[in-house]
Amino acid sequence: MSSCQTVADPRVQALVNDLIGRVADKWTMLILDVLAEQGTLRFTQIGTAVPGISQKMLTQTLRQMERDGLITRTIFPVVPPRVEYALTDLGLGLGAAFCGVWLWAEANLQRIDVARTAFDARAAV
Amino acid sequence: MSSCQTVADPRVQALVNDLIGRVADKWTMLILDVLAEQGTLRFTQIGTAVPGISQKMLTQTLRQMERDGLITRTIFPVVPPRVEYALTDLGLGLGAAFCGVWLWAEANLQRIDVARTAFDARAAV
Repeated sequence: MSSCQTVADPRVQALVNDLIGRVADKWTMLILDVLAEQGTLRFTQIGTAVPGISQKMLTQTLRQMERDGLITRTIFPVVPPRVEYALTDLGLGLGAAFCGVWLWAEANLQRIDVARTAFDARAAV
Repeated sequence: MSSCQTVADPRVQALVNDLIGRVADKWTMLILDVLAEQGTLRFTQIGTAVPGISQKMLTQTLRQMERDGLITRTIFPVVPPRVEYALTDLGLGLGAAFCGVWLWAEANLQRIDVARTAFDARAAV
């Protein structure tokens, strides 16, 4: 059982662990954040807004997020074809759940920097 | 700027994004959860409690978590040497921040299952 969950059924726990394994991923989290902030976006716009993501990883993550029901993918029959991505209610909910992690990161940047410097100093001895 | 953050400084945002990239990782999240639930544990106990993690990934993730100040690593000078891991206050805080994601996963298991089934049916057409 997770330290913050109430369900004791081990089958449910295994499913939750699997799901966490899928969504607890930095690219999913960064894409969710960009779509929550900027609304509907095209593929190339998401790529620009998420620094460091490769085209392959962007394609793969968007497809997985669509499969999980976190985003919609709308294809407009124009030339050249236009494809737009937007969060579903489910995706918005996960974005909101991740807020706690963003706020934690923002609040603890300095403490982590201090910890890393101390660790590296010990490792160098 | 993140959809749930207040800081507009782009340098701070870049640091927060880097940090999210480090901690938004399923192994970090699963190890945090096990230590939050069970308290101080030895290496092999963590490996048993986190299904599917390889020894290499466990070593690597624990070392990174120690460097980030999320866990302490205590070595007892006995034969054979005993090494124990425990959460710091910083790690406890991150574990608490991840609670929202665990609860979201638990609450939305069925909706995601329905979304996946629908996606796979469309893909098979």
